[in-house]
Amino acid sequence: MTETTAARVLRQTEAEAVYVVCGYLKRYLTGFSIEDGYVVADRDGVTMYTDARYIEAAEKFFAGKEGFAVRLMAKENAPAKLLKKYKSVGISFELTSLSDYRKLQTLNVRLVDVMPAFNACMAIKTEEELAAIGKACAIAEEGFLKLLPEIREGMTERECAARLEYEMRLGGAEGMSFDTIVAFGANASVPHHETGDTRLRFGDEILIDFGCRKEGYCSDITRTFLFGDDQKHETFKELYGRVLRAHELFKEKFHAGMTGKEGDAIAREYFKKHGLDKYFTHSLGHGIGLNIHEEPRLSPKSSTVFADGMVFSDEPGVYFAGEVGIRIEDTVALQGGTVRSFMHKTDKKLIII
Amino acid sequence: MTETTAARVLRQTEAEAVYVVCGYLKRYLTGFSIEDGYVVADRDGVTMYTDARYIEAAEKFFAGKEGFAVRLMAKENAPAKLLKKYKSVGISFELTSLSDYRKLQTLNVRLVDVMPAFNACMAIKTEEELAAIGKACAIAEEGFLKLLPEIREGMTERECAARLEYEMRLGGAEGMSFDTIVAFGANASVPHHETGDTRLRFGDEILIDFGCRKEGYCSDITRTFLFGDDQKHETFKELYGRVLRAHELFKEKFHAGMTGKEGDAIAREYFKKHGLDKYFTHSLGHGIGLNIHEEPRLSPKSSTVFADGMVFSDEPGVYFAGEVGIRIEDTVALQGGTVRSFMHKTDKKLIII
Repeated sequence: MTETTAARVLRQTEAEAVYVVCGYLKRYLTGFSIEDGYVVADRDGVTMYTDARYIEAAEKFFAGKEGFAVRLMAKENAPAKLLKKYKSVGISFELTSLSDYRKLQTLNVRLVDVMPAFNACMAIKTEEELAAIGKACAIAEEGFLKLLPEIREGMTERECAARLEYEMRLGGAEGMSFDTIVAFGANASVPHHETGDTRLRFGDEILIDFGCRKEGYCSDITRTFLFGDDQKHETFKELYGRVLRAHELFKEKFHAGMTGKEGDAIAREYFKKHGLDKYFTHSLGHGIGLNIHEEPRLSPKSSTVFADGMVFSDEPGVYFAGEVGIRIEDTVALQGGTVRSFMHKTDKKLIII
Repeated sequence: MTETTAARVLRQTEAEAVYVVCGYLKRYLTGFSIEDGYVVADRDGVTMYTDARYIEAAEKFFAGKEGFAVRLMAKENAPAKLLKKYKSVGISFELTSLSDYRKLQTLNVRLVDVMPAFNACMAIKTEEELAAIGKACAIAEEGFLKLLPEIREGMTERECAARLEYEMRLGGAEGMSFDTIVAFGANASVPHHETGDTRLRFGDEILIDFGCRKEGYCSDITRTFLFGDDQKHETFKELYGRVLRAHELFKEKFHAGMTGKEGDAIAREYFKKHGLDKYFTHSLGHGIGLNIHEEPRLSPKSSTVFADGMVFSDEPGVYFAGEVGIRIEDTVALQGGTVRSFMHKTDKKLIII
């Protein structure tokens, strides 16, 4: 039997037990999502405490899974009662609220910050997690390919997003990783443009930043392309080439053992050489997993040393306010020491439709 | 000029200023959503601190709005620097993490829990908020009506959810309030069934729990109906009548001044009279706003006194494990002392398609 995620986390903390209330930590320890409730894990196993809305589905999910149990939340299962038998309990100092902390403080239990252990474990994906992310990426790419022939002059950004999301849902997505960004024309110069009612005109550029969830895990991908080529796109094409080169350069040069800062610098230095660094207004990438943004970070401030099994985005971009914005993003992983993209179905050569 | 939400919150706290990091509190104070960053509000106005991804859109959004400003996050704008000029600062004890709290503790500033003020303000919706919720409800109902003729034997729950979400997105939804629940047949007996690959068969019941976001605000609605009537549905029809009566009874009897517990009891007592109370396994309703689940609650534990301007769900349901589940839900508001539904387009008489 492979080690459970709970056993991995417990191995990295000095606490006897782990107590979590935050949604994604509960999901990470159990593989099952509940809205309320909490999870307690110790060397003997993992117990999820939930309410009537989830109990039937949870019992079905955990049936036959050794080391997992599910219980109804009740007075006799209150955290204070469950946790007092331990000498030390691991909680996330980052995700535990001040008010919850004050309740736990009344117990005669030493509270240990277990977030570093979670971050370390969650950053290195298991084979199962990599497979789920791979599926989420494939669904996103296939959705994009199905969207392309549906793009029409006069359609709104929202219609375009609706169609893409529909294709991803039909392809098996559980939901979106985040609100899909569709930007037509100069709207693309806003890195996080809010998809709206702007209509597509001939000659517009199109930037789409999207992703979906599968088995709880996220994908993240951005494509920028042209709707018709009316000869005014010389600048666009030159910039596109630069962004694509920065994107590829990172994939070629980054490897296990480098820091997030060094990774970010691969793209940033390339842009600098071409006078574009001041238009690259965000960091190069972020970790992707159960959360769309998580550890590790590829940014000028990140001292994280990257290792095999980490999954993150490679998303250089340049933005000229009110004029043009280009971003090219893949979800990638470090495997065998080097960068492997999850994206294989969509071409990054400039698409003109 | 109408009072800003920040002024409302400040009026209900003794703190000189309010400092928030949590996403929906930032949105509530400013009307604008950012992922990272923070907002500081005092009697002089509201300032949002964000990063390069959002600054252009934020500047556009706040242009001409008196009392609002936007700044780039930077060292000189660090919370510690911004907050030290105040004697007291309001933070949410529920939403501030232990680690953030410890940083704030180093300042010579008295920290006050501002969450009660936020909860009180956010529970009473402004006209603008009611209008946004109304739009989100209309889009959801229209999406449902467009879905009905598309339902086909053999389609999967996921395809059904995809189509409904597509229609809502085309109708103007920004995204979903939560992962759409579509349950065919006996799957409906799980209150929070995970939409999957089950295919629709003649004679199945269909339960759909869904909602979308518009201008940041959520809608929430559940409809249960039949796909074909093969004469085996006598029990279903009887139960449907009971659930619908519980749903309507609440609308008729609940009024401003009653508590959440009294509201919940209207449906619960009715079910009890008919021997169904043990199959009503959740509470009757929850507040709806920027969050799909927020204050106030309609539950056996809720002592909240309800007042005009509150928006919440009315969602009685009964569940017989492995057999049948029925839930009927509207998003409603208290206005003029009584319950007004936001749902006007869909009939709650049993639909058989």
